[in-house]
Amino acid sequence: MNKIIILLTTLFISVSFQTFASTQNDVFANDRAKWLEIAENLKPELKYEKIRPLHIVKAQKDKNAFQGWKFNIVDKADKIYTKGFKTMWSVSLDFGNHYTGYFSFKTKIISKVMDSPIRLKFTFAELPAELNTPFDPYKPGLSRAWLQDEIITVTEQDKYITIPRRLSFRYVKIELLGVSGYFDFAIDDMYINAQTSAGDLKVSVPENSPQIIKDINKVASNTLKECMQTVFEDGPKRDQRLWLGDLYLQALANRYSYQNFDLVKRCLYLFAGTTTKEGLTMPCCFERPKPHTQDHFLLPYSLLFSSTLLEYLNDTNDYQTANDLWKVAKRQMENAFSYLDENGAYNMQDKRRPWLFFDWRKNLDVTVSIHCAIIFAINQTTELAKKIGKENEISHYKAIKEKIKTNIINNYFDKQNGVFVSGKNKQISQLSQAWAIIAEVMSGDEAKRAMKYVLTPNQNVVKVGTPYANHYIAEAMFKCGMNTEAKEYVVSYWGGMVKKGADTFWEAYDPNDDFISPYRFHPQNSACHAWSCTPVYFIHKYFK
Amino acid sequence: MNKIIILLTTLFISVSFQTFASTQNDVFANDRAKWLEIAENLKPELKYEKIRPLHIVKAQKDKNAFQGWKFNIVDKADKIYTKGFKTMWSVSLDFGNHYTGYFSFKTKIISKVMDSPIRLKFTFAELPAELNTPFDPYKPGLSRAWLQDEIITVTEQDKYITIPRRLSFRYVKIELLGVSGYFDFAIDDMYINAQTSAGDLKVSVPENSPQIIKDINKVASNTLKECMQTVFEDGPKRDQRLWLGDLYLQALANRYSYQNFDLVKRCLYLFAGTTTKEGLTMPCCFERPKPHTQDHFLLPYSLLFSSTLLEYLNDTNDYQTANDLWKVAKRQMENAFSYLDENGAYNMQDKRRPWLFFDWRKNLDVTVSIHCAIIFAINQTTELAKKIGKENEISHYKAIKEKIKTNIINNYFDKQNGVFVSGKNKQISQLSQAWAIIAEVMSGDEAKRAMKYVLTPNQNVVKVGTPYANHYIAEAMFKCGMNTEAKEYVVSYWGGMVKKGADTFWEAYDPNDDFISPYRFHPQNSACHAWSCTPVYFIHKYFK
Repeated sequence: MNKIIILLTTLFISVSFQTFASTQNDVFANDRAKWLEIAENLKPELKYEKIRPLHIVKAQKDKNAFQGWKFNIVDKADKIYTKGFKTMWSVSLDFGNHYTGYFSFKTKIISKVMDSPIRLKFTFAELPAELNTPFDPYKPGLSRAWLQDEIITVTEQDKYITIPRRLSFRYVKIELLGVSGYFDFAIDDMYINAQTSAGDLKVSVPENSPQIIKDINKVASNTLKECMQTVFEDGPKRDQRLWLGDLYLQALANRYSYQNFDLVKRCLYLFAGTTTKEGLTMPCCFERPKPHTQDHFLLPYSLLFSSTLLEYLNDTNDYQTANDLWKVAKRQMENAFSYLDENGAYNMQDKRRPWLFFDWRKNLDVTVSIHCAIIFAINQTTELAKKIGKENEISHYKAIKEKIKTNIINNYFDKQNGVFVSGKNKQISQLSQAWAIIAEVMSGDEAKRAMKYVLTPNQNVVKVGTPYANHYIAEAMFKCGMNTEAKEYVVSYWGGMVKKGADTFWEAYDPNDDFISPYRFHPQNSACHAWSCTPVYFIHKYFK
Repeated sequence: MNKIIILLTTLFISVSFQTFASTQNDVFANDRAKWLEIAENLKPELKYEKIRPLHIVKAQKDKNAFQGWKFNIVDKADKIYTKGFKTMWSVSLDFGNHYTGYFSFKTKIISKVMDSPIRLKFTFAELPAELNTPFDPYKPGLSRAWLQDEIITVTEQDKYITIPRRLSFRYVKIELLGVSGYFDFAIDDMYINAQTSAGDLKVSVPENSPQIIKDINKVASNTLKECMQTVFEDGPKRDQRLWLGDLYLQALANRYSYQNFDLVKRCLYLFAGTTTKEGLTMPCCFERPKPHTQDHFLLPYSLLFSSTLLEYLNDTNDYQTANDLWKVAKRQMENAFSYLDENGAYNMQDKRRPWLFFDWRKNLDVTVSIHCAIIFAINQTTELAKKIGKENEISHYKAIKEKIKTNIINNYFDKQNGVFVSGKNKQISQLSQAWAIIAEVMSGDEAKRAMKYVLTPNQNVVKVGTPYANHYIAEAMFKCGMNTEAKEYVVSYWGGMVKKGADTFWEAYDPNDDFISPYRFHPQNSACHAWSCTPVYFIHKYFK
């Protein structure tokens, strides 16, 4: 009896404490369920289309091809449906474009009787080299499971088999690993049930645009389309999830393409509904089994919540949502300010150690960038506040902004060269200048001078490494009036991928290094990555 | 216009010819659809039971263990459900018995957040050595696809995944091939949805039987149970299909165990419904996508159709079925007679070259066996005819039988040693004597003398190699009154498997060679094979 009383008392204290703790600390405790419900109700219906391969292809090593491999057309894909698989043992097929969805196939017996199961290996790839680079032995890095090779045991003929994982690919290689010596079979049918929530393109480039502009726009739109599933994913092959930094860029591109603003709204609510107890938006969000996030806070992405909400409001005039999520935007700002000292200097030693991702470029110093990202967020949040009449709530932002600005100009601006120099080692990087311009810390001729300095070949300048960072370079150039150079930059960088055969824009691209990979293994790169889709935004906004 | 007429004319001629050809040649053209419908209506409902593993086990090399491997218990299986898989990377589990069905599992995240798919390899095995012998690089032989290793990409947590192929196993090894470095997971649940159509055992051994008899009966019944699916399969791992030779033995064992006579009836109708145009039963039958057979005629199995039908009639008094299928039985006999010359000698040079399988023993001469198998079939068919009043239809059988008998006694009986010597090289084999006794060509002391001769260690005697052939050895011994020796034989041979750890009786077993394999790779052997299940028949019929 005593035991039960002690147990009940313990339970009571424990429940009371939890209630107390949650009402004290959990700033959005009363909002999250509602926000997630709104997100859930906005989950889009996917559109499906069965796509079959176009060609049987043969891989050829070619040092002039991207990543050293290309495919040559051997025959029409239809030929495979009557061809004994044992006359090939291995075959590669080209679906002609990048698709995302579930893959199904069917076999039929074309000689004798199926007296054993058939063991088939399917390897799916977005790029030719991905299909022709052995995955194993696999060196430690990203999960081996991202690579899209699946072994299937066929035990019955004339029956569709659907590979259980969702795939993203243009090419498939089918290899026969096991069969009895007695019979032969053929692939009877195969298709990907291609899925996207994008819908039709609402905006198109003028007919008289140069071909390369049309091509870039097409590839950029296709990239976005493939990433538009039940959320804006970063990449349909990898990581298949919603990232806040990518969402911001996707929202910009979406305006000039599919105009699926409900999907932006859903994603904003997902981030709001999965904020931490402290009210922070986490960098990425998983949908299943229920919405949840990872645990490493990424400050620059959190700062983009305001910007994304502002863009959404501008696109839709949905003031209700803007008002509803305003406190989330504001909370991200307050949190960012908590890293600043009394002089407006960001404390790089802060024990909370947020992730300060701006680019995968090695040894990039982000001191200037993080300060400017906070200023940019202040600017955007202020614009948002003005639109919804909440300026009074953030009247103190202006003084903070001035402090940050003064601090970085005093400490990190090299007057002689007219460039920002970041961190203790006074690193000159392209990205520092770009973020200073985006934050309007620099503008006009001063901004142009800085950008030209870092865009001129110079070993001392740290260049950007990802399409994500390149977006901010191009945006900065347009912003400071370097329209001609900015257009050339977009055509050169993203057009470079087109010229190398991209159907969708890549996660990683360095014009001088086809094998660049943040994961030290290029087949792990995502060849269809949301953060590369912004040319569709640049072209329609700036290419007049 | 002319073209159409020519086309129509061609079609007409072609259709007419086919109709003509089929009515001329296809002896059961008007029966097959009806027979297959009867078979379809007898398809049993499978009974399912979810079975979870009992123990985590660790493999140990042990030259005294069967095939050199054994498993030691490490812990209760439940422990795995809370154990981070990354603390193991590989684990083997023991389900405690042999099961057949579909395997499902579920993962849960136990540390951090699932930020990548998980690549798992599952290897299922009936025997310890099967799980511990590398399958690759795979040497040509039976289809690699029979081996039960499957690679699964887990993309979602908390969701059951069912491996699409049906499996047959006691042990499973789970290996982690890929995962992100960030999180850890555990197997949350796993089970096989064990399936069989057997139902409950209707016959049991007396309580006071020796333990070894109880054990043999249990293992034999379990073997049959596992093979009882929607047909009597030869082996649930391999080949998963109905064979007529196995069916005959399963019908005998079924009488003394599950007494599921409708399944025997279904199988008889499947063979009848899939006869060739010439009315021949083929050796094996596949159920899906619709009943069909392979193309290599196996005469000794075809000869067992009568015997199986007779056993079925004896068990059920289902005269309707016996009458309905009588013409199929008779057709098999007529076909067998067509291989005989005017002296009753089987023409080994016949161009039709039927498969004369009696055993996998290399270089076995089957001349005596095939003659005796025909005689045995005449005897059985005559008994069947008597029961259903059809003796007048086969009055000519007796003369044929006498001719065959006279021929083999004159040509293949070694009077000095009292044994049959088979073929040109006068091979002395155990099987020739056994079939001569089963066919009642020899009996009494003469038979005993022959059996004793070939059972006495002697390098010149070709022994049997499979449990299938061993059935006929034991049957012959019981038949000629060697009850004591026959019991010892059964206990020694099948009991030998029990002592080596069998949960079910094996496809291949040589007491002196644990690695014997008809496929030159012991993991391909079926460790649960119908043709090994007859001790349940011997024990109940003869072990008084």
